[in-house]
Amino acid sequence: MAAAQDYEFGGMQLPSVVDKACFAYFLGANVSTASYALLTIANANLLLAYGTREQVETYVRPMTAGRFFGTMCLSEPQAGSSLGDIVTRAELQADKSYRIFGNKMWISGGEHELSENIVHLVLARIPGSAAGVKGLSLFLVPKRLIDADGSIGERNDVVVAGLNHKMGYRGISNCLLNFGEGKFKPRSRSGAIGTLVGEPQKGLAYMFHMMNEARIGVGLGAVMLGYRGYLHALDYARSRPQGRPTDRKDADSPQVPIIQHADVKRMLLAQKCYVEGAFALILYCARLVDEERTAETEAARRSASLLLEVLTPVAKSWPSQWCLEGNSLAIQVHGGYGYTRDYPVEQLYRDNRLNSIHEGTHGIQGLDLLGRKIPMQDGAGLRLLMTAMDRTIYACAECENEDLRRFGHMLSKFCQRLQGATEALYAVANPARRLANASIYLETFGHLVLAWVWLEQALTASRQLRSGDAGFYSGKLHTCRYFFLWELPKIEPVLERLQACDTTTLETQEDWF
Amino acid sequence: MAAAQDYEFGGMQLPSVVDKACFAYFLGANVSTASYALLTIANANLLLAYGTREQVETYVRPMTAGRFFGTMCLSEPQAGSSLGDIVTRAELQADKSYRIFGNKMWISGGEHELSENIVHLVLARIPGSAAGVKGLSLFLVPKRLIDADGSIGERNDVVVAGLNHKMGYRGISNCLLNFGEGKFKPRSRSGAIGTLVGEPQKGLAYMFHMMNEARIGVGLGAVMLGYRGYLHALDYARSRPQGRPTDRKDADSPQVPIIQHADVKRMLLAQKCYVEGAFALILYCARLVDEERTAETEAARRSASLLLEVLTPVAKSWPSQWCLEGNSLAIQVHGGYGYTRDYPVEQLYRDNRLNSIHEGTHGIQGLDLLGRKIPMQDGAGLRLLMTAMDRTIYACAECENEDLRRFGHMLSKFCQRLQGATEALYAVANPARRLANASIYLETFGHLVLAWVWLEQALTASRQLRSGDAGFYSGKLHTCRYFFLWELPKIEPVLERLQACDTTTLETQEDWF
Repeated sequence: MAAAQDYEFGGMQLPSVVDKACFAYFLGANVSTASYALLTIANANLLLAYGTREQVETYVRPMTAGRFFGTMCLSEPQAGSSLGDIVTRAELQADKSYRIFGNKMWISGGEHELSENIVHLVLARIPGSAAGVKGLSLFLVPKRLIDADGSIGERNDVVVAGLNHKMGYRGISNCLLNFGEGKFKPRSRSGAIGTLVGEPQKGLAYMFHMMNEARIGVGLGAVMLGYRGYLHALDYARSRPQGRPTDRKDADSPQVPIIQHADVKRMLLAQKCYVEGAFALILYCARLVDEERTAETEAARRSASLLLEVLTPVAKSWPSQWCLEGNSLAIQVHGGYGYTRDYPVEQLYRDNRLNSIHEGTHGIQGLDLLGRKIPMQDGAGLRLLMTAMDRTIYACAECENEDLRRFGHMLSKFCQRLQGATEALYAVANPARRLANASIYLETFGHLVLAWVWLEQALTASRQLRSGDAGFYSGKLHTCRYFFLWELPKIEPVLERLQACDTTTLETQEDWF
Repeated sequence: MAAAQDYEFGGMQLPSVVDKACFAYFLGANVSTASYALLTIANANLLLAYGTREQVETYVRPMTAGRFFGTMCLSEPQAGSSLGDIVTRAELQADKSYRIFGNKMWISGGEHELSENIVHLVLARIPGSAAGVKGLSLFLVPKRLIDADGSIGERNDVVVAGLNHKMGYRGISNCLLNFGEGKFKPRSRSGAIGTLVGEPQKGLAYMFHMMNEARIGVGLGAVMLGYRGYLHALDYARSRPQGRPTDRKDADSPQVPIIQHADVKRMLLAQKCYVEGAFALILYCARLVDEERTAETEAARRSASLLLEVLTPVAKSWPSQWCLEGNSLAIQVHGGYGYTRDYPVEQLYRDNRLNSIHEGTHGIQGLDLLGRKIPMQDGAGLRLLMTAMDRTIYACAECENEDLRRFGHMLSKFCQRLQGATEALYAVANPARRLANASIYLETFGHLVLAWVWLEQALTASRQLRSGDAGFYSGKLHTCRYFFLWELPKIEPVLERLQACDTTTLETQEDWF
């Protein structure tokens, strides 16, 4: 829990990039159970940034020690993606504490007996606050109250109203929680007792501190599900004999391992390009987290932060989409066996399907990128990204490897086209029209980012090829080639539609369905 | 069971196209349980074509009456896609019957107590037969023997060795069956008693009679899973209020049904284009089944048969791929709720994932199309299809609707490019190189076929627009538009790779993974 925390919190002070690389193993082992830790770490980080000294001492220390676990309570039955419609209310008490009343849906780790206590971070509305997201405040609501001497006291008024039975991700409880239902009456009254975090009506901004971290965490979980599936598929493909190559079909010859079939190679190569590409992207984001804290100049720290803002929706959505596709291919490599519970790949596929839903759906990520991150600071984020890509393109132009020179040129061409499409979309006055294809813009943008990530890996591989593990580096170069020949060109026809600010979907009438 | 059979078998003599349209409702209700009937019907049809009079009287009549159910027993633990490696053996007895010994894997409906008897059709090898698929013979092996008076007699030597626990499709038992294990000893000896179907060593050809039907059945099942998901998503989108349009975000205004969000419209439109397109393709294939029996001239009957051969891999694979994608979008429309067992869409998604595996995997369908169906009769099948498409393109050119004229032109252009790529692939001498991207060829070919199917629907809709349900026909026209603007162009960069006979995947070395 504390690996990335300061020494005084029992931490190892690991850089984020090292911390995430380590945590990846836990996610690979069991993505849903590891989410107890992921949520607790993100919760502790939020309180470290915005909590009072007392909140930190009382709740963060036990969380970094692994004694308390944390949750984030945003959604309600009537307010999922639309957080502005949250109605949970927080009533101020004479002692400056609050009493919380409301229902919170989809709360991962919302109830369990794995830890001594559970620290809920709850978005709620103080009566009289503004409508919409601007009126939301953030509260710390423990499952059990903490007595003055620091010992764990009576039960707070937070109870499970229902468990959500999901298709996958079943290693963590997921609950509908009732706050203030009155089953427990702390200090003899109904209402869950909570304390305000930071200032009133700034709750969503604080929560985004946690959500951005959670979104990168979701991306990393999606990566590790895909990665594990890939390794299982690879192992199966090497050991399962079946059939013969299409140019040596003698029925008397022995069957060959299926890795020798071109179509199986294709499915493995696609998985490799999805999972290793996405993993590199997540680790790059983790490096930006480090740089926004430790880069030498204030300008460099601000740049890292801005670039991270632009990349976060991609880091969340691209692995959720393509590593799921990787999991599907892992099943396909296993044939019928992969579809059974005797092999692990079907669970990975079920687990990964959640990742484009929670912590902001795919559609929400698209709106976040095109509607918020792109126009931020007058487009500075996109310009920063393009500058970073230009450095890679320049390195490719200087490179001896003919493939990489060609791919650098391709990336350059597609960057220009994306910028053109972005300008065309921002020339549209009506936001409904501009944002009509925001999800598709996100997917296209994501493929371009991954092309860049692959080119960076290939540049390193081309330098290391003679000095190290030739198989490993050749694999990187070849997978980059696969990405540029088979994956990146997929965005060509899509860019054309975006450039045209196509409104086909927007114009669809309800009675046409 | 008997709807499409002759009157003398208790049937209604329904044309295949009507029969399939009706059976679609059963598949929509529960695809896996309906498969008991689907397999029984296909089994009965095979025996009607190739069985002896006695086999028909003893087994087909009770199957069409719904008293006996049928299975197909092809795969073995070591022989899935590679049927040539089947080792189940059939030993001739003095009374002309056979004793069967071996293990059969993935047998849907392999054991249950829903019917009085189960009729297994078993591929096995008579000792001394040729190696590979050419040495396979087909046997009828009942679960219970039938006595001379037609009554159900003693248990045959066929037992369940294991149940396969699948991710979905759990409404039908799926078994590993042992034949001749000796638990039951019919007529006092081990070995499952069976009778030969047709002639020795022609088993696979007979089985393909059943498999082609089963493949179209799989396609129809995939369609109905997608269709049902689409209807649920549509219903949910119309009734679930959440958020506000991007151009009217006043927090005090009420939330709108999510069908008003552009991204939800996009997801519904994509589902509509996948499921209604695929359904039309399957019904067209059913019409070809009718025409190969009833068309007026021998030439027309042969043409229908050849066109059906070419379209069968598409009818099996395209719905399996894209209606699964539709099911994924149906989950996405439901948000978190769609990922829970309280809503039906997660089961549909799990069920549909099987369809690109059973009855010949996606990769096998690709090899079937590019390696067998395309070169069949010197390319006559592809020419027939192109001629049929040309008729549609010509009708578009004559049409008043500007969109359809444009889409007809697009289809024509892509047809030429597919023919060019096909010629380029057949100019390659080495079959390993030619077939390296057979799965991708299949997917590309499939999108082109679906574009044609949509254009045909749109032509009808444009004629009917003023005379009928304007919403319905406008929806058809608009979905065709969506397919031509957003879906069909996806094949453009892929065709370029196919034209180049790309060998990226084939060249991948094992130690690069």
